[in-house]
Amino acid sequence: MAAEELSNKRVIFKDYVTGYPKEEDMILTSATVPSKVPQGSTAVLLKNLYLSCDPYMRGRMSKPINRSYTDAFTPGSVIIGYGVSKVVDSGHPDFSPGDLVWGMTGWEEYSLVTTPKGLTKIKYTDVPLSYYTGILGMPGLTAYVGFHEICSPKKGETVYVSAASGAVGQLVGQFAKLMGCYVVGSAGTKEKVDLLKSKFGFDDAFNYKEEEDLDAALKRCFPDGIDIYFENVGGKMLDAVLLNMRVHGRIAVCGLISQYNLTQREGIYNMTSIVTKRIKMQGFIEPDHKHLYPQFLEAVIQYIRDGKVVYVEDIAEGIEKAPSALIGLFTGRNVGKQVVLVARDR
Amino acid sequence: MAAEELSNKRVIFKDYVTGYPKEEDMILTSATVPSKVPQGSTAVLLKNLYLSCDPYMRGRMSKPINRSYTDAFTPGSVIIGYGVSKVVDSGHPDFSPGDLVWGMTGWEEYSLVTTPKGLTKIKYTDVPLSYYTGILGMPGLTAYVGFHEICSPKKGETVYVSAASGAVGQLVGQFAKLMGCYVVGSAGTKEKVDLLKSKFGFDDAFNYKEEEDLDAALKRCFPDGIDIYFENVGGKMLDAVLLNMRVHGRIAVCGLISQYNLTQREGIYNMTSIVTKRIKMQGFIEPDHKHLYPQFLEAVIQYIRDGKVVYVEDIAEGIEKAPSALIGLFTGRNVGKQVVLVARDR
Ligand SMILES: NC(=O)c1ccc[n+]([C@@H]2O[C@H](COP(=O)([O-])OP(=O)(O)OC[C@H]3O[C@@H](n4cnc5c(N)ncnc54)[C@H](OP(=O)(O)O)[C@@H]3O)[C@@H](O)[C@H]2O)c1
Ligand SMILES: NC(=O)c1ccc[n+]([C@@H]2O[C@H](COP(=O)([O-])OP(=O)(O)OC[C@H]3O[C@@H](n4cnc5c(N)ncnc54)[C@H](OP(=O)(O)O)[C@@H]3O)[C@@H](O)[C@H]2O)c1
Repeated sequence: MAAEELSNKRVIFKDYVTGYPKEEDMILTSATVPSKVPQGSTAVLLKNLYLSCDPYMRGRMSKPINRSYTDAFTPGSVIIGYGVSKVVDSGHPDFSPGDLVWGMTGWEEYSLVTTPKGLTKIKYTDVPLSYYTGILGMPGLTAYVGFHEICSPKKGETVYVSAASGAVGQLVGQFAKLMGCYVVGSAGTKEKVDLLKSKFGFDDAFNYKEEEDLDAALKRCFPDGIDIYFENVGGKMLDAVLLNMRVHGRIAVCGLISQYNLTQREGIYNMTSIVTKRIKMQGFIEPDHKHLYPQFLEAVIQYIRDGKVVYVEDIAEGIEKAPSALIGLFTGRNVGKQVVLVARDR
Repeated sequence: MAAEELSNKRVIFKDYVTGYPKEEDMILTSATVPSKVPQGSTAVLLKNLYLSCDPYMRGRMSKPINRSYTDAFTPGSVIIGYGVSKVVDSGHPDFSPGDLVWGMTGWEEYSLVTTPKGLTKIKYTDVPLSYYTGILGMPGLTAYVGFHEICSPKKGETVYVSAASGAVGQLVGQFAKLMGCYVVGSAGTKEKVDLLKSKFGFDDAFNYKEEEDLDAALKRCFPDGIDIYFENVGGKMLDAVLLNMRVHGRIAVCGLISQYNLTQREGIYNMTSIVTKRIKMQGFIEPDHKHLYPQFLEAVIQYIRDGKVVYVEDIAEGIEKAPSALIGLFTGRNVGKQVVLVARDR
């Protein structure tokens, strides 16, 4: 039977970006894709259900100068990112039509994935499938390893999380509470600050945009200092945190979102604290810790089922909304994990 | 028998310092001290033989604002620092006249130490006694724990040391060579750079003052990047190093001497590397690792006896020279460990 053609809306990366990304840096187009994988190939054809908007994608939009751990997007090609998909056709022994998977896919309705090694079959479907872009996907594992492996937390320690209501931050705060820590988060709106306290169980929270003096805000929230800082934003916040760390404090450097779109980055001036307070500051990326995914999945699915951890998502409906959803991360428009719903079909 | 009085030249701390310290910030005075400890006390009276000039002393000259791990000097009082001394009289059961000790003493010819818990009896005297201000004292233990405990070095890794010819740096380089690492150092004069290569066995070295572009200098010396950076200077050097670290690199933050005298510190702009390269950056101070002193002493005395490690000292003769020797650290006038010889008497 000859493959019929499926119509396929796609989001194309226009060209390298400097400064803040704009919707116009991505172009919505229409194309078609054969409904079958090429005969004899080991490709899989995916119907994309959810696409994930993640801050690291900004890095892939920049002209490649220094090699990084991710490659740049190719101008004129479809945007690539995490997603949740259903297998439509497969030439690969590990995947069959109907399988639900999560992993790297295209920002389009259907994706032909020629080397499906970046795809994981979804084991538990008693939770929203979109969770595999967030709490049970890359951001979830990031929060889990970042907090448990990099921060070496102990019961009773004080923990500060920036971008605390986001995909990663809301989980770090909840993991820290489960560990018996005192947890404070910051976020950029009153609504988010309320969420932190009422929904995620943070002990305290503040709106960093309304603080004239970040050092003073941290001193108010942590009169005895910070044992653990989970760093999502960088810049001025990091500088203020350095002044408020306790002796032998740890900083897990997960991301520096406040710097991603600046053409001139902010300087960090308080490095002296690293010596005087004997601070350990450690960067990490989730792909280095993939081997912990099975352990993470079992732990977190149980937390979800037991109601010990909750997760807030911000779902944009329709692939047309993907560009604005992505750029919204950099102005804090998302409340919780930013997802794009492409198709409801499970 | 009544105690006779000994004449006692002393170096007095004049007042808190901003910016670079000057000789005039310290005043040479003459006083007297009784030749016996007060009856019934557990004090010891020391005759100081060598005094140590150490960069951290600059911190003690600043007006205390943020509590640090060292207290500020008291204006009008004698300068305090590490030294090597001979016990003249003792009311303490652990010390007897004639004992040689190293530890905290005053910048004066004789010091009455009322609580001698900061003093260590010298076990090996087949090396220059001044070594207990350097290779066998605080800077030695700093290099030893900083490199072995904080850097987690492995054979074959690339190591970069700044202020490499100094009290700490020359040892870090030699420890790294003994470990089988590839070692490059930087220093501020041609003479020091020559020393690094000819005397301390560094694989390569450069004069950072003659490099227009520190990033380019590091790329030249480390075409495949740096696994371990032993940080002594901070500022622009740290920023350039961050661009040249390898994935999973480690930075031991020992000191930031380039920043100690600035009223406006330099910013660090390349923090993004901490995430993309998954760098661990860790501050440490020697007092936290004192329990390793016995192990360190046995290892390093053997290295010295076997000629596996050498040590260069810069000895200023006479206590009058102490102020200029101290301030010379901050312009790089010292070649090797800066010591002040107060009295030759062993
Ligand atoms: N290392 C890794 O493997 C890894 C993996 C995933 C994510 N990350 C990093 O983790 C961080 C959080 O990612 P996420 O997925 O959880 O994103 P997110 O928090 O869900 O979304 C980004 C949030 O960042 C905040 N933000 C944006 N611009 C900011 C600025 N200039 N200053 C302060 N906050 C700003 C906004 O919240 P407000 O309203 O609070 O400002 C925004 O909602 C990012 O830095 C990301 O790059 C790292
Ligand atoms: N964490 C700890 O427990 C601990 C213990 C001991 C020492 N330290 C730190 O380790 C570092 C080295 O101490 P040390 O005792 O071995 O001193 P040192 O290297 O013997 O003497 C200081 C040297 O620093 C260099 N220097 C001065 N100003 C500089 C600048 N603006 N930029 C770059 N280099 C500069 C000079 O050498 P050049 O000619 O090469 O410029 C100078 O000779 C210092 O930062 C010190 O505070 C830390």
